[in-house]
Amino acid sequence: MTKDLSVCLSPALINLFQVEDYIVVIIDIFRATSSICYGIENGAEAIVPVSLVEECAAFKNNGTNYLLAAERDGKVVEGFDFGNSPFSYTKDKVEGKTIVLTTTNGTHALHLSRKAKKVVIGSFLNLTSLCNWLKTQNQPVLLVCAGWKNNFNLEDTLFAGAVVDQLKGADFKLDDAAIAANDLFEIGKSDINQYLKKTSHGERLKKLGIEKDIEFCLQVDLTTAIPILEGNSLIKIN
Amino acid sequence: MTKDLSVCLSPALINLFQVEDYIVVIIDIFRATSSICYGIENGAEAIVPVSLVEECAAFKNNGTNYLLAAERDGKVVEGFDFGNSPFSYTKDKVEGKTIVLTTTNGTHALHLSRKAKKVVIGSFLNLTSLCNWLKTQNQPVLLVCAGWKNNFNLEDTLFAGAVVDQLKGADFKLDDAAIAANDLFEIGKSDINQYLKKTSHGERLKKLGIEKDIEFCLQVDLTTAIPILEGNSLIKIN
Repeated sequence: MTKDLSVCLSPALINLFQVEDYIVVIIDIFRATSSICYGIENGAEAIVPVSLVEECAAFKNNGTNYLLAAERDGKVVEGFDFGNSPFSYTKDKVEGKTIVLTTTNGTHALHLSRKAKKVVIGSFLNLTSLCNWLKTQNQPVLLVCAGWKNNFNLEDTLFAGAVVDQLKGADFKLDDAAIAANDLFEIGKSDINQYLKKTSHGERLKKLGIEKDIEFCLQVDLTTAIPILEGNSLIKIN
Repeated sequence: MTKDLSVCLSPALINLFQVEDYIVVIIDIFRATSSICYGIENGAEAIVPVSLVEECAAFKNNGTNYLLAAERDGKVVEGFDFGNSPFSYTKDKVEGKTIVLTTTNGTHALHLSRKAKKVVIGSFLNLTSLCNWLKTQNQPVLLVCAGWKNNFNLEDTLFAGAVVDQLKGADFKLDDAAIAANDLFEIGKSDINQYLKKTSHGERLKKLGIEKDIEFCLQVDLTTAIPILEGNSLIKIN
């Protein structure tokens, strides 16, 4: 049966979709969902996405098994273990730990999608593994781009297009945004980093001095773990 | 001086922009802004965009100089002279007349943009004329895609990309949506009608039996008039 494959280009457009009808994939390539994929791959027991820095801080007395990660405007919030750089989510740092995480865009998009059938996390790191799993689900899929403060951005859209590219043969009906995302991916795919250099976000991230993070986040199929929301936590799909 | 050239991909995203800083171009290719350009070109004295069918109906007793046009969900509302098919905006029908118009998407986007420095109307029909005028203004430009009930659509985005294509050499700074729109136009420009056939809106419009309208609306540079909002009316720029 043909199922919808839709792309929500900004969290501000999510009310246009009945999220409860979809499996939602949250996309925040630079850097939240890339780091979540990497952290879960590296044995983090769970990642708890929270909306506010204060909620994150409230976990401070929960013991050494908790790591607190808070990012705002691309920087680690003062007083926190780390933000959303993937290099903070290596095995030696996160294995066996629970990470409480708040970010500018990614966790916001995630909270807006809570009512979905399932909420999973996507990034170039786990692209093919994610797409293979989505194909087995036989459900409508909504790809939610976290964007930058509700603004459209190219890196999240390009990743959405990469997912569309893998799913489009599998009896999905694409909406206009899915077609656009796929066509943009087609243009950019031979060198995504180069393509993104012309974007506003590229400029912004360059100013933050995180070019290495960017390169890391654009690696395709480095990981296979798919983080899924269970209750309030992101855990690895079995 | 470098000025912003931004694309608002849906009226639901317009709050992300300070519209008062921009010249806004309203885009609703199928069919409102195409018909407005054609009507103004053909000597309509003014086109008055109103939000509600009831507001439109309130002009009923204003005499034969007024034509009332109301479209909802792609169809002419019962009891009205016509909707937004461009073939209703020919010289013999509209010359010297004032048209009161309400549409599903285009007039909505227009009302949200009222606070802009200037509000003008764009379509493939007046593309080059519009772009030449925008180049003379030396102001930031915001291209507002009316979409379909706040959903992203490809035809409005492609037109935005066509405008970006003509302006990008003229000292404008593109946002991510402008880059994306331009790249999509690049893909579709050799045969826009063919490109759009794969879209959801193409399907919807085909069901409405308006393929001839679509072909008409995709003609490039058929007209030169640029409709601009003055008070409550769209009139021809002098």
